[in-house]
Amino acid sequence: MSSVSLLESFGQINATLPDMPQKKVMLLGAGRVGRAIATDMAEAHEIVVADASASQLERLKRDNPKIQTKLADFLAIDTLKPEISEADLIITAVPGNLGYQVVSQITELGKPVVDISFFAEDPYDLESLAHKSGSIVIVDAGVAPGLSNFLLGYELTQQTIDTFICYVGGLPIERPWPFQYKAPFSPSDVIEEYTRPVRQRIGGQLVTKPPLSEVELIHIDGIGTLEAFNTDGLRTLLRTTKVPTLIEKTLRYPGHAEYMQVLAYTGFFSEKPIDINGLSVVPRQLASHLLGQAWDMKPDERDCLIMQLQMQSGRKTIQYTIIDYADEAKQVSAMARTTGYTCTAIASWLLAHPESLQPGVYAPEQIAAHSDCFSFVRDYLKERGINIQRAEKPVSIDLSSFSDDQRF
Amino acid sequence: MSSVSLLESFGQINATLPDMPQKKVMLLGAGRVGRAIATDMAEAHEIVVADASASQLERLKRDNPKIQTKLADFLAIDTLKPEISEADLIITAVPGNLGYQVVSQITELGKPVVDISFFAEDPYDLESLAHKSGSIVIVDAGVAPGLSNFLLGYELTQQTIDTFICYVGGLPIERPWPFQYKAPFSPSDVIEEYTRPVRQRIGGQLVTKPPLSEVELIHIDGIGTLEAFNTDGLRTLLRTTKVPTLIEKTLRYPGHAEYMQVLAYTGFFSEKPIDINGLSVVPRQLASHLLGQAWDMKPDERDCLIMQLQMQSGRKTIQYTIIDYADEAKQVSAMARTTGYTCTAIASWLLAHPESLQPGVYAPEQIAAHSDCFSFVRDYLKERGINIQRAEKPVSIDLSSFSDDQRF
Repeated sequence: MSSVSLLESFGQINATLPDMPQKKVMLLGAGRVGRAIATDMAEAHEIVVADASASQLERLKRDNPKIQTKLADFLAIDTLKPEISEADLIITAVPGNLGYQVVSQITELGKPVVDISFFAEDPYDLESLAHKSGSIVIVDAGVAPGLSNFLLGYELTQQTIDTFICYVGGLPIERPWPFQYKAPFSPSDVIEEYTRPVRQRIGGQLVTKPPLSEVELIHIDGIGTLEAFNTDGLRTLLRTTKVPTLIEKTLRYPGHAEYMQVLAYTGFFSEKPIDINGLSVVPRQLASHLLGQAWDMKPDERDCLIMQLQMQSGRKTIQYTIIDYADEAKQVSAMARTTGYTCTAIASWLLAHPESLQPGVYAPEQIAAHSDCFSFVRDYLKERGINIQRAEKPVSIDLSSFSDDQRF
Repeated sequence: MSSVSLLESFGQINATLPDMPQKKVMLLGAGRVGRAIATDMAEAHEIVVADASASQLERLKRDNPKIQTKLADFLAIDTLKPEISEADLIITAVPGNLGYQVVSQITELGKPVVDISFFAEDPYDLESLAHKSGSIVIVDAGVAPGLSNFLLGYELTQQTIDTFICYVGGLPIERPWPFQYKAPFSPSDVIEEYTRPVRQRIGGQLVTKPPLSEVELIHIDGIGTLEAFNTDGLRTLLRTTKVPTLIEKTLRYPGHAEYMQVLAYTGFFSEKPIDINGLSVVPRQLASHLLGQAWDMKPDERDCLIMQLQMQSGRKTIQYTIIDYADEAKQVSAMARTTGYTCTAIASWLLAHPESLQPGVYAPEQIAAHSDCFSFVRDYLKERGINIQRAEKPVSIDLSSFSDDQRF
């Protein structure tokens, strides 16, 4: 699918965003993405970062001495209460398994919170708590879920969408044998993507498919041919939208899925303990360890983030393409840039327009319609070099323009 | 490489082998191959089979009530002394890790022994013990090592051989995804083949290569295209012959080696323990367990054994091809047939011609020259439906007969 000739710029990009009054922001989590968030927010705001790792906090202060740090256990939220109560907004970038508990405790304190911990629990379980405390909770504010949801949410304000397919993946520039992959986040989270049953909506029906299924090749201009397979990443979209067909597929260099299928089939991703000479061994724990070594992304390894959204609306196809590369100078990966800056864009918008939302829980697709949120986020990302390309073309393809051997 | 038109029958096949006087044979080991050996030897001889598994022995007696059995631990050789001292010949088909100790103890008792336990130790370490006790010890009497060595030994009595390549593999008839493989013996022994450094002799020099290396495609008429890769199986040939180039490659359905390379690369075949949540886990033990399940050959699954020997002698190529299938009626796998019947052929020859060999240790290539050993073994296998095809052709290939796009 090539649509270069159909690409068009859309909307007017403001030269610079309007000046924003300095606010106080608290960030929980100083990992790869947390670091990108902290340095970005420190440009315009006062920021305090809490993490359990002294070395991560040290590194942050070296990067930018304006950043204040606090050594703390995420679950001992009481020790962070002074900083939280002073903050205008909290950003949570903690490990997924801690996310729900941390966000829930902050919600209870009545503070606005923007979360990218991608926890497994249902965020809307926090709805009544948020109403009671007066807290605005925005979850899944990353790239996918996150920006993907946001762009669909925006298009839904313009027209009906019949089909939404999100192709997304973070890939290393160098393609090392055999996996041609480096994990931009925890390897166990990648394996989780490869094992969790995939929920999709097809023709209005909720269906469940195996992960790593329906591998197809897809050509991305400027990148080359990738493979795409089903993963479970639609999350809130299945609840918040009525789009009849909703699909998410993960992008990798061709061949990756096959090796993962082999490992999954053979039982290396199983969580059922196996008795090995009297020891109870969980295969997935060993696989996480070994794949973690094979997928380890060294500080000098560059990655890229590729996201293509294909939406069908009647006889029209709307295609969004985002291709982003690691910032070598700042040593920020493409995954951290696109995830972190989507989060800071949304957080900055909320700080600038706190009156836009009522207390409650929101996913990115639910805020795109509010005041100038869409253009704010788009311009914010543009300022940081993340370009959102949009193209429109008719759905039907004239088959007569293909020669016989091109039909497949 | 297709040589059907060049195939020729060689030698005269006797209609039936000469009647042999009944002898007493003791067999240690009633596994898959041991079972084939026991029922075959029971046709002409009195046989006692010892094993530590009562159910395996029960099954043997059900197959053939003439077979005598004795429940025994292979390492408690004293308990088997009465049977051993009465026997004219001992066959050992015990697990490889016990082989050397068991064969050594029988050698000490001065009895002739034919071994297919394929132990890792150097069999020639038993040489002085065999001379002292008067024992004849024939090791590696299977299909490969075994028959492959034997055929090379025979050809070396006819002419100088410059290059010997043994392609060999046991494969299932059905090719299940992903490995297209079922293990005809212990999965840990298969993994050992995929991990042990490969010793070859190339142009007179001993070289060591990685296992699973130099994967090439090879077409076997009647089977199709297979892949072949380096494994360490030359064993005694590196010592007993001066053939300048000696290579062994294992045959699998194409694609198998790649998955094994991925597992090996990622560390799943490592024997170095890894700490997983405080437990010390050896990756290879888990891999053996999981691949053992994936490779489990059910009783009704048929296999085939494919062996092709390519020998170069000056301007001439000699090619041996053996293709054998499981005996469904008797439920004997092709691997058990070719391994077991090579062993019983050699054992029967030794029983018929005990005077042919002086006490000492012998590999199959060292006995092929003795009296009528070659024709005896060939006819013995032929009687059991194992056909050894031999073809000769000139080395040089006329490239002008290929069209441009066939050259590669």
